[in-house]
Amino acid sequence: MAQREVARAVADQAIARLGARLLPSAVPADVAEFRNGAGNAVGSLDVHRGSPGSSIDFMLQSSLHCKVPNGAIDITSILIFLNALTDAPHFLLELIQGSSTSIVVILDLLPRKDLAFHPDYLQKYYEETRMDEQRGKIEELPQTRPYRSPSLFVRSACSPTAIMVSIDCGQGGEKALEEIMHGQLATVIQEVLQIWLDNCVDSTTEMDEVERDCLLKRDRIVRSKSIEVDLTANLPRMFGPDVSSRVITEIRKAFGVQEP
Amino acid sequence: MAQREVARAVADQAIARLGARLLPSAVPADVAEFRNGAGNAVGSLDVHRGSPGSSIDFMLQSSLHCKVPNGAIDITSILIFLNALTDAPHFLLELIQGSSTSIVVILDLLPRKDLAFHPDYLQKYYEETRMDEQRGKIEELPQTRPYRSPSLFVRSACSPTAIMVSIDCGQGGEKALEEIMHGQLATVIQEVLQIWLDNCVDSTTEMDEVERDCLLKRDRIVRSKSIEVDLTANLPRMFGPDVSSRVITEIRKAFGVQEP
Repeated sequence: MAQREVARAVADQAIARLGARLLPSAVPADVAEFRNGAGNAVGSLDVHRGSPGSSIDFMLQSSLHCKVPNGAIDITSILIFLNALTDAPHFLLELIQGSSTSIVVILDLLPRKDLAFHPDYLQKYYEETRMDEQRGKIEELPQTRPYRSPSLFVRSACSPTAIMVSIDCGQGGEKALEEIMHGQLATVIQEVLQIWLDNCVDSTTEMDEVERDCLLKRDRIVRSKSIEVDLTANLPRMFGPDVSSRVITEIRKAFGVQEP
Repeated sequence: MAQREVARAVADQAIARLGARLLPSAVPADVAEFRNGAGNAVGSLDVHRGSPGSSIDFMLQSSLHCKVPNGAIDITSILIFLNALTDAPHFLLELIQGSSTSIVVILDLLPRKDLAFHPDYLQKYYEETRMDEQRGKIEELPQTRPYRSPSLFVRSACSPTAIMVSIDCGQGGEKALEEIMHGQLATVIQEVLQIWLDNCVDSTTEMDEVERDCLLKRDRIVRSKSIEVDLTANLPRMFGPDVSSRVITEIRKAFGVQEP
């Protein structure tokens, strides 16, 4: 499946570059792979914590597959979050596919500061890295439409160069979509990851205590809120309360946030 | 001209409701109306400061008209900014028209806090006011395309429910555009203004000194940066250095920000 292949290539690229900065996977077997009672939904979760002294907080990969009456829903996520040694953006990729001819893509360097308050941060990570050109490469495809997350919070948390699009190739467009995914989309995801690897992973930021507290607090709010919006809303529907509570517990652990 | 008429109706609606909260206009005559040496560009600026004790900082209306080889460029802005008695959003409308068949619209309740850091603020001013439905009413028009400001800063400063669109009615679409402007667009602008009047103007916010300092600092950065992006880039080209420096000085005075 194109979605999985593209995500795997990106994850491999990240893991190869991050190397010893990542600790071995640390997820119990019944969360590394999980399914629902009815057998129509299956998921996987993999979390690597960052090694001590590195700027990596964690790398999280997840995939969900759920059969529905007219086909299946597939969601793949790759998050690589940094810790408070730096204020550089996190890496975020989410692919949400509800049919074989269309896909929603969310790809961003997730900002960790208020961009309107910190134009220097905006310039460093978004203007100088020419992130907007990557967005342009996807949005110029005629099959692409802007995707507005129904969550205003998700829209607020993303950067102004975030790629948030729905690519719809219409009836009979299975092959066209596969070509885009293996072509322009895979290229742009890899390039954005490369920009992130080159500009964010090895950066360290001098911060006084107030700044670090503020960064940590903001990180925590964004993480809690993402779990609330993204997972606690969807997982129980797909996997029932027991499985999803086990999975969400592991994700909370990775994110370092408590239940609300 | 439809653009002027729509803007005037909105300004009148605001002035009628704000009443004694606005002081009389306080702009020198050579800034209230100005033109360039060649006579192909004319502009107007009107600024009302808020009266003492009110939450209004100022209301600014401006219009620019500049003949170009293939027609004319018309830009109308209405900004109503609040002071530090409240942290409620500002009102912002900008209409930019480069032809008789298309127009760019920027309409927002401009947030004064980092929305990812303050989900309660997002909920209060953007979710509970159902601002996103207003955006939907304009974006559902078939002539509408998303407008991305080339300035990442402008995109960062706006809310996730900001209406940032280009409405293009194509060749021969003069009448269609006028109808949209007097119809759906005028309605949405008036409704957004009404939401702002009902939810923001009379609100006061208890803040400690640190919070108020932070709000004021953020306001100052957004204001300085907007002037830099919007005016110091464009006005001199249209009106030459002398006229534009006079106009920008008055705008800086209203905004309460110094030259960089």
